[in-house]
Amino acid sequence: MSSNSLGPHNKAAVSRLFELTEQLSAEFAKTAIVRDRQGGNAKIERDLLRESGLLNLIIPESYGGHGVNWQDTLQMVRIICRADSSLGHLFGFQHLLLATIRLYGNQWPEYYRKTVQGKWFWGNTLNPLDTRATITPDKQDWRVNGIKSFCSGATDSDYLIVSAFPPNGGKLVVAAIPSNRAGIKINSDWDNMGQRQTDSGSVEFHDVRILDSEILRDPGPLGTEFAGLRSLIAQLVLTNIYIGIAEGALTEARSYTKSQSRAWFRSGVEYATSDPYVLHKYGEFWVELNAAILATDYAAHLLDLAWLKEERLTESERAQAAVAASTAKVLATRAGLDITQRLFEVTGARATQSSAAFDRFWRNLRTHSLHDPVDYKLLDLGEWVLNGKSPTPGFYS
Amino acid sequence: MSSNSLGPHNKAAVSRLFELTEQLSAEFAKTAIVRDRQGGNAKIERDLLRESGLLNLIIPESYGGHGVNWQDTLQMVRIICRADSSLGHLFGFQHLLLATIRLYGNQWPEYYRKTVQGKWFWGNTLNPLDTRATITPDKQDWRVNGIKSFCSGATDSDYLIVSAFPPNGGKLVVAAIPSNRAGIKINSDWDNMGQRQTDSGSVEFHDVRILDSEILRDPGPLGTEFAGLRSLIAQLVLTNIYIGIAEGALTEARSYTKSQSRAWFRSGVEYATSDPYVLHKYGEFWVELNAAILATDYAAHLLDLAWLKEERLTESERAQAAVAASTAKVLATRAGLDITQRLFEVTGARATQSSAAFDRFWRNLRTHSLHDPVDYKLLDLGEWVLNGKSPTPGFYS
Amino acid sequence: MSSNSLGPHNKAAVSRLFELTEQLSAEFAKTAIVRDRQGGNAKIERDLLRESGLLNLIIPESYGGHGVNWQDTLQMVRIICRADSSLGHLFGFQHLLLATIRLYGNQWPEYYRKTVQGKWFWGNTLNPLDTRATITPDKQDWRVNGIKSFCSGATDSDYLIVSAFPPNGGKLVVAAIPSNRAGIKINSDWDNMGQRQTDSGSVEFHDVRILDSEILRDPGPLGTEFAGLRSLIAQLVLTNIYIGIAEGALTEARSYTKSQSRAWFRSGVEYATSDPYVLHKYGEFWVELNAAILATDYAAHLLDLAWLKEERLTESERAQAAVAASTAKVLATRAGLDITQRLFEVTGARATQSSAAFDRFWRNLRTHSLHDPVDYKLLDLGEWVLNGKSPTPGFYS
Amino acid sequence: MSSNSLGPHNKAAVSRLFELTEQLSAEFAKTAIVRDRQGGNAKIERDLLRESGLLNLIIPESYGGHGVNWQDTLQMVRIICRADSSLGHLFGFQHLLLATIRLYGNQWPEYYRKTVQGKWFWGNTLNPLDTRATITPDKQDWRVNGIKSFCSGATDSDYLIVSAFPPNGGKLVVAAIPSNRAGIKINSDWDNMGQRQTDSGSVEFHDVRILDSEILRDPGPLGTEFAGLRSLIAQLVLTNIYIGIAEGALTEARSYTKSQSRAWFRSGVEYATSDPYVLHKYGEFWVELNAAILATDYAAHLLDLAWLKEERLTESERAQAAVAASTAKVLATRAGLDITQRLFEVTGARATQSSAAFDRFWRNLRTHSLHDPVDYKLLDLGEWVLNGKSPTPGFYS
Repeated sequence: MSSNSLGPHNKAAVSRLFELTEQLSAEFAKTAIVRDRQGGNAKIERDLLRESGLLNLIIPESYGGHGVNWQDTLQMVRIICRADSSLGHLFGFQHLLLATIRLYGNQWPEYYRKTVQGKWFWGNTLNPLDTRATITPDKQDWRVNGIKSFCSGATDSDYLIVSAFPPNGGKLVVAAIPSNRAGIKINSDWDNMGQRQTDSGSVEFHDVRILDSEILRDPGPLGTEFAGLRSLIAQLVLTNIYIGIAEGALTEARSYTKSQSRAWFRSGVEYATSDPYVLHKYGEFWVELNAAILATDYAAHLLDLAWLKEERLTESERAQAAVAASTAKVLATRAGLDITQRLFEVTGARATQSSAAFDRFWRNLRTHSLHDPVDYKLLDLGEWVLNGKSPTPGFYS
Repeated sequence: MSSNSLGPHNKAAVSRLFELTEQLSAEFAKTAIVRDRQGGNAKIERDLLRESGLLNLIIPESYGGHGVNWQDTLQMVRIICRADSSLGHLFGFQHLLLATIRLYGNQWPEYYRKTVQGKWFWGNTLNPLDTRATITPDKQDWRVNGIKSFCSGATDSDYLIVSAFPPNGGKLVVAAIPSNRAGIKINSDWDNMGQRQTDSGSVEFHDVRILDSEILRDPGPLGTEFAGLRSLIAQLVLTNIYIGIAEGALTEARSYTKSQSRAWFRSGVEYATSDPYVLHKYGEFWVELNAAILATDYAAHLLDLAWLKEERLTESERAQAAVAASTAKVLATRAGLDITQRLFEVTGARATQSSAAFDRFWRNLRTHSLHDPVDYKLLDLGEWVLNGKSPTPGFYS
Repeated sequence: MSSNSLGPHNKAAVSRLFELTEQLSAEFAKTAIVRDRQGGNAKIERDLLRESGLLNLIIPESYGGHGVNWQDTLQMVRIICRADSSLGHLFGFQHLLLATIRLYGNQWPEYYRKTVQGKWFWGNTLNPLDTRATITPDKQDWRVNGIKSFCSGATDSDYLIVSAFPPNGGKLVVAAIPSNRAGIKINSDWDNMGQRQTDSGSVEFHDVRILDSEILRDPGPLGTEFAGLRSLIAQLVLTNIYIGIAEGALTEARSYTKSQSRAWFRSGVEYATSDPYVLHKYGEFWVELNAAILATDYAAHLLDLAWLKEERLTESERAQAAVAASTAKVLATRAGLDITQRLFEVTGARATQSSAAFDRFWRNLRTHSLHDPVDYKLLDLGEWVLNGKSPTPGFYS
Repeated sequence: MSSNSLGPHNKAAVSRLFELTEQLSAEFAKTAIVRDRQGGNAKIERDLLRESGLLNLIIPESYGGHGVNWQDTLQMVRIICRADSSLGHLFGFQHLLLATIRLYGNQWPEYYRKTVQGKWFWGNTLNPLDTRATITPDKQDWRVNGIKSFCSGATDSDYLIVSAFPPNGGKLVVAAIPSNRAGIKINSDWDNMGQRQTDSGSVEFHDVRILDSEILRDPGPLGTEFAGLRSLIAQLVLTNIYIGIAEGALTEARSYTKSQSRAWFRSGVEYATSDPYVLHKYGEFWVELNAAILATDYAAHLLDLAWLKEERLTESERAQAAVAASTAKVLATRAGLDITQRLFEVTGARATQSSAAFDRFWRNLRTHSLHDPVDYKLLDLGEWVLNGKSPTPGFYS
């Protein structure tokens, strides 16, 4: 049975989910500045997400989920990120991890059903660049030892996507296990300049048992073209986070310019809202943000088409979607960095007061934009346009 | 009767028109470099366009045209521009002038029928910033005297869109008259650094008679929201010309890099196609060009929706389409200038030889990109995003 | 007697002052990250500056100071800012305020002598854009009432430069008074995202007496071309702060890239220090930073020449120096923002950890770069190059 | 005896040389547009240069030259390039070739004397990347066979710097021979989009005899640190050509904006010279051009210091000068491309007319800026700033 037989959505149902997302986003906005300072785990807000049912967006209706497509799901990630990009990050990763189960293993029906029933929030410890965790056989099961960094959402999670390398250097092994499995130590050591409530710290594995049935091995990571969609989903989650941050920044900047900013004494105008350079910059923000949005929505559309193809997905179709995702990522990164940096130029010196916390947009985006380098996205795109080479399926492309 | 009741297109018919356009583009490509040097009137190629029937793209089928929508029409403009942006310019302006008749007057059915029958190529003398031509009453008709500059496509045209101001400074009067009307002197004085075969020189009017029935006065320029679509069509014709030029430049650059360019001795690679900086630049070109294309196609889509609304078009709908067109114009201008300037950095010093004529892309785009300033597009967009002001309908927005 | 008859410096003496500045900078570096988090008043470090004698750099040797020229003084500001741009800011403003006394009044000999004797740290309440403080006559003296914002260095200062407008809207009145004068309330309300230990909060004036002899009125603000040098000094203090921040950021980034950063798995190189894109970015940083430094040093050189001219300074000479200062400010702002934003792209995701505090460079520069808009500097420079207009002497140009 | 013992210049003499250069530049300006269209050899202007004595600028006074330092010489190159960058290119290369003789061989005294006496114009065939010319022994002398491309100034030259590789792949051999030596065929095959009168075509060698005494082998190319200055001189000649072009473009643009450009109807100002965006762009041009000029003059100053050191020049001193030259080259390339591309945005659509020939600035700069890639300059600078590596002495760094 297919996870993708979504059928024509009930438009009204999707519309209600968007409303619910907007409500949660508004709720998170009330405390976003305070929580950014605190860092740590956003337990209350995570539980609101659990209760909302929004953690099941991409789970098919036949398994109790909402059966929402990727384009809508990612737009909801964006909506949360306008108010709070840490929560939006965790919300986006929930769906990335649900996709991981679907794409890498055949156990997804059971995991999906239980996710809905248990209101599970999934945590991530799949970091393919950190090779310190290893997996070794133990009778008919397995044991994991070592440590992983950048484990977003592990704290307060119900289930974890775990990954480890065989000691002999083979292919990454990925599994889905309960977060409270004996031997797992989730550290509260994420204290970074941005995305402060994403719990992206380290997780230690002390002889943690993995049942053979928990290993996602059919087809496993990058096992098929379809399995290769995981990295596209990861990239588009990031991209939508950046766009959400930029949208939030632009909205707050606009409000400040209109209510607080003063015309520069040399400008010859009465209000900052009539300053030719201020208007020009808002025009720039609009142009670059819209380019990023159009490219991102287009990439999500290609992802949806690819997702529906399942194992019939061809190399060329995956490549087209991957190229679109990379294009969107570059545009969103740049638009986001520019807007979050230059919003101060349209609000003025007083907008640097800590109470406004306008720096959080830049800190959040800057932090998350380092996940993987834009330069290598451009290299991939160059290979595509110049040499006709498809991006090699991997964890980042 | 509506010009817009296009009904569902015959997809196969549109597909054949695209093929025909590609064929003409390939034909024009053969002589584009030579004709760029010559400048002057491209009589042979203009006649090929006349014979092709492609001058009737947006004329409804019921009037003998192809009933193609704007998005497709503009993509065909782009295809011609890949090979020859002078001819693409004239081809785009043909449709802009046909739209002018539709939007400003109620005489369009007759003009449309005759355009098809006579294979008319329309020429432009509508330049609202040049106020040197005036119109005065002469019994029940009118007389135009004076001169207009930037009259693209007037030479070798069959009919002209004429414009003139009343001497007392009232609203611009626009009319459609035969190009061979007594007193019209079309000068061959276009000798500019780019768009050299667009015949964009001056036209003199020596007591030229305009019949009252030739004046497009219902609703006249900017008479209604619908009439206000003319500037959007003008802007999108320009935008698609830029994209076509950039696509042509990118295609030729790629071919050169692959066949002619040498790896820089310091690069450590054997072929220029593996140079990390060359690939990075091709990646940049791809990203900016795709952003421009997505924004342009989106704006054309909104234009098509607005066009179908006819006189029911609201101020808000026109504004949305205008904002999308301005956004696209900014992106296409910048992408085009960047690609046409930097293509030399991915091809190398030998690519500056006159026989390759790679400079024509930049000369053409640079020339045409000065039609109206990007800075004032950004100002408009700033007013929209910051102050919620719609672009004021005019000849440029 | 002239303040400017500095005679040829003792090179060895200046060299020792540079060494002393380097030592203090190294000392401040030890606690800079912790103090950035705390904000508030850096009492210990301010007292170290007092004891160092460096607060008297520009005071002529005949008054007990060091008689250092502006170029050297500003380079010492830069050195402090590499480690701590809050302290560098206060250190730079000390000299700006000493210059204010010299340029606006004839009482400077006494103030200079006492500054040296009392190891005075001067505080600023001269904010010409904040018009809320007024000055009114009270018998042969004066009274100030109201409030001023952005009063850098007022807390823990010994003396203050005070400014207020007559209620009838005349010219700004500037005076130099003890910070503990009755009625002065210095608020600890500076809590901004950057420059957190500059005490740039508000100061209230409750019927504060100003002796007539404390008013700097000969020639007063902008009273002569020479008096008009104050804004150039202000601009160059800012410029050197930006450069110092950028230098500090670059130094720390370099150290991190070399010791901590990992090569991206796709790069084909073993160490991040060999990545072609990382090296390219460091090359960019170098180029833009060096351009800013050369322009800044050149402007300081012109300032020194102008300073030595005293009241013989011509309009044209001041204009040349002002244009050079504006040019430097634009370059330093842009180089600084670029380096502090992009240093993360050469260090990587792990460099966002709070313990590294790499975001402080951007927060500090971004905050301070809003003092006055770069766009209006460019407008001034455009008037200069296009129309031959000198920048109008004012508090910002 | 040293070529470098220039002694303190006679300032008046240098001043007269500058005046003479300005006069020649003004003379060349009269026909620059026409000659740009013609391409080919500028015989009349080349003879004016010969007669002027300016071809001997860097030849020491004791050999009959002017003994001008590099900084002044390069500024004179800039002055010629303001009017005509083809002639400026040839003029700059004359001095590069004179430096080549000085740096690579010990025969320079004789060549210098004869250059002055014979009013020799030197031509270049030293292209180390073109390996098609080979040199083989012929009794006590040598024979060269093959072809070289990009041989600027060979046509109508009196003497040539020749280069060829031994067939076995050893080090490049460089010699100085008369241009009319039997077997030399100088082709008139330079027809490129820019620098059209530089005669940068190919030169064929058909069994051309080279006397052993004509070979510059002590110390030969890159034989010592001092010999390694040649590439810095080459780079700074290029850099000064770019600056000259940019200065010429800015001057003509300014004149056009003031006399011809119209205010955009939306700008709210009467003249284009008051448009806030036009002024802003002129401000930008000023800033980037000044940064390039300061960096270039600084690099020339370091070159002069290095030149005076002769064989005592250390690796570190050469490296400092090389880094400064590369920095200047990057800044000048970018400023030049930006100004020559965007000057149209401050002049307007009518400024594209062929008679104004404003495109020649961009065509000239774009063509010459491809001599060697800016990206590899940035790579060198990155190695310097990040890894402390000096640029490897070579023909381009």
